[in-house]
Amino acid sequence: MTIGMFTSFITRHWFSPTAIRIWSDDATLQAWLDVEAALARAQAELQMIPQDAADRIASCCRAEGFDHERLSREIAFAQHPFVPVLKQLEERCGEPAAGYVHWGATTQNIFDTAIALQLKQTHAHLTDVVQRCEDHASRLADQHKATLQAGRTHGQHALPMTFGFKAAAWYAELRRGRERLQARADGAFLTYFGGAIGTFAAMGGKGRAVEEAAASLLGLAPARLPVRSSFDRVADYLGGFALLAGTLQKIAGDIVFMQRTEIGEVEEAFHMGKVGSSTMAQKRNPSAALVLVSLCRLLKARVPLILSSMVRMDEGDSSATNVSDIVVSEMAILAASIAEAAERVLGSLQVNEAAMARNLELTQGLIMSEAAMMQLSPMIGRHRAHHLLYEAAQETATRGTPFVETMRHALHSVELGDVHLALSPSAYLGEIREIIRGGSSDEEPQS
Amino acid sequence: MTIGMFTSFITRHWFSPTAIRIWSDDATLQAWLDVEAALARAQAELQMIPQDAADRIASCCRAEGFDHERLSREIAFAQHPFVPVLKQLEERCGEPAAGYVHWGATTQNIFDTAIALQLKQTHAHLTDVVQRCEDHASRLADQHKATLQAGRTHGQHALPMTFGFKAAAWYAELRRGRERLQARADGAFLTYFGGAIGTFAAMGGKGRAVEEAAASLLGLAPARLPVRSSFDRVADYLGGFALLAGTLQKIAGDIVFMQRTEIGEVEEAFHMGKVGSSTMAQKRNPSAALVLVSLCRLLKARVPLILSSMVRMDEGDSSATNVSDIVVSEMAILAASIAEAAERVLGSLQVNEAAMARNLELTQGLIMSEAAMMQLSPMIGRHRAHHLLYEAAQETATRGTPFVETMRHALHSVELGDVHLALSPSAYLGEIREIIRGGSSDEEPQS
Amino acid sequence: MTIGMFTSFITRHWFSPTAIRIWSDDATLQAWLDVEAALARAQAELQMIPQDAADRIASCCRAEGFDHERLSREIAFAQHPFVPVLKQLEERCGEPAAGYVHWGATTQNIFDTAIALQLKQTHAHLTDVVQRCEDHASRLADQHKATLQAGRTHGQHALPMTFGFKAAAWYAELRRGRERLQARADGAFLTYFGGAIGTFAAMGGKGRAVEEAAASLLGLAPARLPVRSSFDRVADYLGGFALLAGTLQKIAGDIVFMQRTEIGEVEEAFHMGKVGSSTMAQKRNPSAALVLVSLCRLLKARVPLILSSMVRMDEGDSSATNVSDIVVSEMAILAASIAEAAERVLGSLQVNEAAMARNLELTQGLIMSEAAMMQLSPMIGRHRAHHLLYEAAQETATRGTPFVETMRHALHSVELGDVHLALSPSAYLGEIREIIRGGSSDEEPQS
Amino acid sequence: MTIGMFTSFITRHWFSPTAIRIWSDDATLQAWLDVEAALARAQAELQMIPQDAADRIASCCRAEGFDHERLSREIAFAQHPFVPVLKQLEERCGEPAAGYVHWGATTQNIFDTAIALQLKQTHAHLTDVVQRCEDHASRLADQHKATLQAGRTHGQHALPMTFGFKAAAWYAELRRGRERLQARADGAFLTYFGGAIGTFAAMGGKGRAVEEAAASLLGLAPARLPVRSSFDRVADYLGGFALLAGTLQKIAGDIVFMQRTEIGEVEEAFHMGKVGSSTMAQKRNPSAALVLVSLCRLLKARVPLILSSMVRMDEGDSSATNVSDIVVSEMAILAASIAEAAERVLGSLQVNEAAMARNLELTQGLIMSEAAMMQLSPMIGRHRAHHLLYEAAQETATRGTPFVETMRHALHSVELGDVHLALSPSAYLGEIREIIRGGSSDEEPQS
Repeated sequence: MTIGMFTSFITRHWFSPTAIRIWSDDATLQAWLDVEAALARAQAELQMIPQDAADRIASCCRAEGFDHERLSREIAFAQHPFVPVLKQLEERCGEPAAGYVHWGATTQNIFDTAIALQLKQTHAHLTDVVQRCEDHASRLADQHKATLQAGRTHGQHALPMTFGFKAAAWYAELRRGRERLQARADGAFLTYFGGAIGTFAAMGGKGRAVEEAAASLLGLAPARLPVRSSFDRVADYLGGFALLAGTLQKIAGDIVFMQRTEIGEVEEAFHMGKVGSSTMAQKRNPSAALVLVSLCRLLKARVPLILSSMVRMDEGDSSATNVSDIVVSEMAILAASIAEAAERVLGSLQVNEAAMARNLELTQGLIMSEAAMMQLSPMIGRHRAHHLLYEAAQETATRGTPFVETMRHALHSVELGDVHLALSPSAYLGEIREIIRGGSSDEEPQS
Repeated sequence: MTIGMFTSFITRHWFSPTAIRIWSDDATLQAWLDVEAALARAQAELQMIPQDAADRIASCCRAEGFDHERLSREIAFAQHPFVPVLKQLEERCGEPAAGYVHWGATTQNIFDTAIALQLKQTHAHLTDVVQRCEDHASRLADQHKATLQAGRTHGQHALPMTFGFKAAAWYAELRRGRERLQARADGAFLTYFGGAIGTFAAMGGKGRAVEEAAASLLGLAPARLPVRSSFDRVADYLGGFALLAGTLQKIAGDIVFMQRTEIGEVEEAFHMGKVGSSTMAQKRNPSAALVLVSLCRLLKARVPLILSSMVRMDEGDSSATNVSDIVVSEMAILAASIAEAAERVLGSLQVNEAAMARNLELTQGLIMSEAAMMQLSPMIGRHRAHHLLYEAAQETATRGTPFVETMRHALHSVELGDVHLALSPSAYLGEIREIIRGGSSDEEPQS
Repeated sequence: MTIGMFTSFITRHWFSPTAIRIWSDDATLQAWLDVEAALARAQAELQMIPQDAADRIASCCRAEGFDHERLSREIAFAQHPFVPVLKQLEERCGEPAAGYVHWGATTQNIFDTAIALQLKQTHAHLTDVVQRCEDHASRLADQHKATLQAGRTHGQHALPMTFGFKAAAWYAELRRGRERLQARADGAFLTYFGGAIGTFAAMGGKGRAVEEAAASLLGLAPARLPVRSSFDRVADYLGGFALLAGTLQKIAGDIVFMQRTEIGEVEEAFHMGKVGSSTMAQKRNPSAALVLVSLCRLLKARVPLILSSMVRMDEGDSSATNVSDIVVSEMAILAASIAEAAERVLGSLQVNEAAMARNLELTQGLIMSEAAMMQLSPMIGRHRAHHLLYEAAQETATRGTPFVETMRHALHSVELGDVHLALSPSAYLGEIREIIRGGSSDEEPQS
Repeated sequence: MTIGMFTSFITRHWFSPTAIRIWSDDATLQAWLDVEAALARAQAELQMIPQDAADRIASCCRAEGFDHERLSREIAFAQHPFVPVLKQLEERCGEPAAGYVHWGATTQNIFDTAIALQLKQTHAHLTDVVQRCEDHASRLADQHKATLQAGRTHGQHALPMTFGFKAAAWYAELRRGRERLQARADGAFLTYFGGAIGTFAAMGGKGRAVEEAAASLLGLAPARLPVRSSFDRVADYLGGFALLAGTLQKIAGDIVFMQRTEIGEVEEAFHMGKVGSSTMAQKRNPSAALVLVSLCRLLKARVPLILSSMVRMDEGDSSATNVSDIVVSEMAILAASIAEAAERVLGSLQVNEAAMARNLELTQGLIMSEAAMMQLSPMIGRHRAHHLLYEAAQETATRGTPFVETMRHALHSVELGDVHLALSPSAYLGEIREIIRGGSSDEEPQS
């Protein structure tokens, strides 16, 4: 019986198979066992437990063969999520090794460290995918650096620009989004071996050394003050997912709009067999972009849960960690999924340059009113120029007379009848080319 | 491979099996088919399609035997969640019936109506469970109507009360929570058969009649203006889940606090084999109450998604409905799960009357300072009484002298040395008994 | 020094002057005093305090003349929000009346009851304004019941409809939004006179009677079990604001889109002097609709605070009530403000029927593909018809050939060359007229 | 008429006066003018406008004397938040300088850059205050490094620790919170001079140079690709506020709990005249900590608004920026306010060592069960030891027999009757001393 968005036949294709694999029950169990193995090996290294026991434990720490049904049943009975896992692990190890399993650790230590491992794997995949999104955006920026398009603000044509400029802005946000995650990764992927309350009480004075050694084995960094009620470092990293979702939802929104029937400036990849509607044969919806918007929303809606999970009673609080254990995995899957969806959308985006050019003409020249003002201002002052243009523009807007005509009339009225204004959109693109070219290098000071 | 909180071996026992069943893929598919069957039967009734075709369709509308893997694969290819379902249904029906499947409807019509069916089933179960929670709270209120306990505000002892009063307040909120859901149910469980944009365009003029007839077959109410971008009625109903979560999280929080080591006034049911910690043998955590808090948070965090899903572009917008289709099911499962968790916790709560009595004594009488003031006020005025008591109380708080002594001293200082104040907690319970007794009848005007 | 969105010169015009007045410090202080006066009068009626004292108290309960600066200073010193108010009130009353002020009540009783009064005033105003929004929507529905417009789903043209249908859907949601608030009003506007923990301990056995009497004087309903930790009834009412915001943001979003340069189907009222940009003279932004979207977001973002404020420790918890005291007033002001903004936008909306007609033609007939399918299905089966039309439609979409031509070709290919399909948008409007006409009466069963 | 939490007499003392000053209307207006002045001076430097004009503009850019009432009125009329400001500025400058005001910029450029200035000022203040919070936490950690206290998880006593350990964890989170803000500051405080859509179209080819020069004058960094729809850098910085709020709410929650009547381990500073209740003279509430919790919630609730404000239509979208312009200022004030509140609370916290010692004894030794297990495990194996202790512990918990006795009995039953276990809490503190001592240096690798 399937249920839940990750496995439902209705929605499972929305989600990153790689991330699903990383966060599946099998992989989670394996991550727990990897942590137990590293703990045992570190402790053997430090002469806390016999080397034989550690070897035996490490060799038994394979998720294959664990009885999930039994786990599930015993977890429900014990009302404890891990003791039944330990029990099966101990059975596999047999005495005397069984007695050295989980030495000095507490359940949440294992969970938190395993999550760090899984987050680290997700991170590696995610940043690769985002990098490919950047490549697509960068390519679009370059290819369309001169493809004229209307720049729009507040839903209205503002100034002319090029589609490459829009793509360059996408690129810049994507790149910052990836760099942000990378900058936080080291501080977020931590081992926690402090035991019940984070004091290393059960480690016989060698806790910090165990933490160092195990961290090194696992490729993580030691938490150092591993109090279980501190979640800020993971929360900070997860914030990077939310910012990435903000960026991708913005890009997806741009695409949904640009594919609007009336706009038609871009189109998602279409293949025969893609269906827009069960009844309307003509429908070519920007389905992938709309799914991307949806997934970004689902991801961002989890941020308040992460923030409230930082507020933990005393030295440990399952009312908070129950939530974060679930939500971290969901956010990780969603983050990988939005990046993959974006890669698909950006990688196959169809650009309709003719439609961009056509739309640019729609205002009958009004889109050049600022250009006109910048030319008139030195002659008659900025304020007067704005006033003149405002009246001309509103007349064009109200009556439909081409702006070039209402403006000619207006110039006559202030005895500037022989002034010739440059009103070609391509002449008012500002520093678009330099900005696009600068792209990667411009922003270096930030990283 | 299991993944996701509803199926993971770690957490699946937190969730209502009944609700899981209602919202599983199998049940969702069946709900879709039930809607298709009702549509066909209604249309046959109205002579829009042949009766034979409707009969054939209805008899084929059984979820068993659908190939989920194929569905999943074709959905991914078509990027459409329902056309592949229709395809398998049509194959089962064969011509000519296949040609009358889904007549005049659009995918979202089926989804929205199926969700109404599933919500209605959830509602019936949920309100039953909440009713049982009320019964438990009501029983606690009655049993402990005279069990003295410290009433607390802002984390400090305030006035004496009884535990029954606390339970009566739980009861009242629970009852309102259920009544609220019931009041909204009829307006929220609706059929939508308006077709692509809600105009019944493909129904040959009989759309409203089809909607009436199909609604009647399904036990739902017709939406009447079935525009796909109106989600307010469902959103309103779901708000009732969030309010219930608010109530249950409050109750769970009370229990977690009262079970605190230092308080010890209540304890969750314990059984040998329940484990609090992998290393601390003594731990008896309020695990179920803590899980309840967690689930309430998970539920409430979905409210903003529901509210933002009301904002739908034009006549239909999958960026919104993708989200709500997922989130409605999650909220329904969570609502049933929190109610079931609360039923378990409330139904087996151990009350420690001795601890309540012991804690009541902790302030050395300060908890009766208001009682003292109410007795002194008629003698020396409320303001002067407050002043006198404030100083006495702060001295007790600072130096630890029993309040009865600091007060005696204070009364002397204002020449009221022979006044005798009634300072027994049981004498200052206000109208607790009447409130508890009134319980069910008191609130009638509201329903 | 002004600060904060309600008073800043930048934004104050976004907010309802009526609501600002209701929730200003002056009005809040007056509401507190009104509650104190009603309490005193009710207590005198029940012979708990002397009638003279009550009269004196009631006559002194005028906000004019209170020293706000002193209040503010003393509140900061006492770290208590109300004792300094009582102090000034007592000074005004003088002894002996001063001694009977606030008899048996606690601060939060006064605050909660005052908020009920202020909410009730807001409610009366708000529902009036929403009613006027409904009138505007209803008028638009009627005026444009036959004004053809493209119905759109997922950002793409779907079926033809009329603008009146869209407005009718707006109307229906608005009306439900108002009815919802009205249905909850009685249960939400309550008096709370239970004292420190809700037991009426300081009322000498007459607490419930006092509550009844004071409620009657204030035009509110008694809370009956006035425990300070129950917030569900107010939270429920406030949920109605959030749903209204959902509706209005949807409407505003529709308007912003329809005013898009490329769409041009509606326009917000424009007046000479309205400025879209400091430099682009041509700009006619849908500023009011965009502000409306913003305010709806600000309102809805407060819902989680209200829900979390339901979770109150024990019998009272200022960490929760500090939040709700602020947020209730903000939500009330925002609710009135979004309704007023919507009234302005809807009341002066310019509809461009020609643009609607023009846009309807943009797909070269594809918008009629479902109509074609419904006509072909009886001839060749729904499935085959969909297949035929899908291919024809995709060819039109890809190559730009008018749909009427690709379809003629397609019909030939299946030997239906002489079939004549009705492909005029006005012939495929379904039951729009009846739905719009039904408008007010259709939905009666719900209320 | 005051209204709104920042100015209301009820709540204004909760907010940082410094931050209020930075974000008041006066200061905002001045920040706008500072930006206009820097723009003019940069443009003069680059020979785009006459030096005289720039000097004149710069000298007129003083907020004093602007007519706020007129601004407010004209803003409402123009439905534009800045053109009326420009008008007054131009009047002050007079021609010809007036003509060079705001040259090539757009309103949002000024707003965004001004917000960067105000954020930078807030940041300087905030990080100072957080540093002082760290100092207090660090001092508490050091003073109480050996003050025994019960470590608690899930609301139950877990292991012994010291209060210094708790304070050290507070310190570590606070420090990371500040470092996080500092790490993001440079990338977030940016100038935006790209004009209407971010292309520098109106800058005659010198836009990037102007941006560099003006940034240098303002002490900010240039945005480089100043498209108005990119908000990720500010959003990222603001995320740091939310994380700080998470930390401070956790600390405040700890204090509220530790001040609970039954716990009594700490107490907020009390002064005669601080009032806990209008009727209960004895109340010493942790008012400041409760306010701190409330303010943290108010701050965090704004995060979703910031995230949704990243999703901006096209090249500019006031539906998003209307929200962020308000919310950024609110978050900044809240951030400074929570830090100041925390400074007050931490700086004057009263620690009751005796209560900590007393509470540690409450479990009759059970808090040492893990210590017992770690000693027994080498003798009889971890699993058997846990089993033995589990039974002994549950007996103590159920019957109240001291743990030392139930355990002696248990040891007898496995023929370990002469084993002597070290069960003094002070012997089971793990590496608390080293962790506390390590404090500042330990975490260096992270920064």
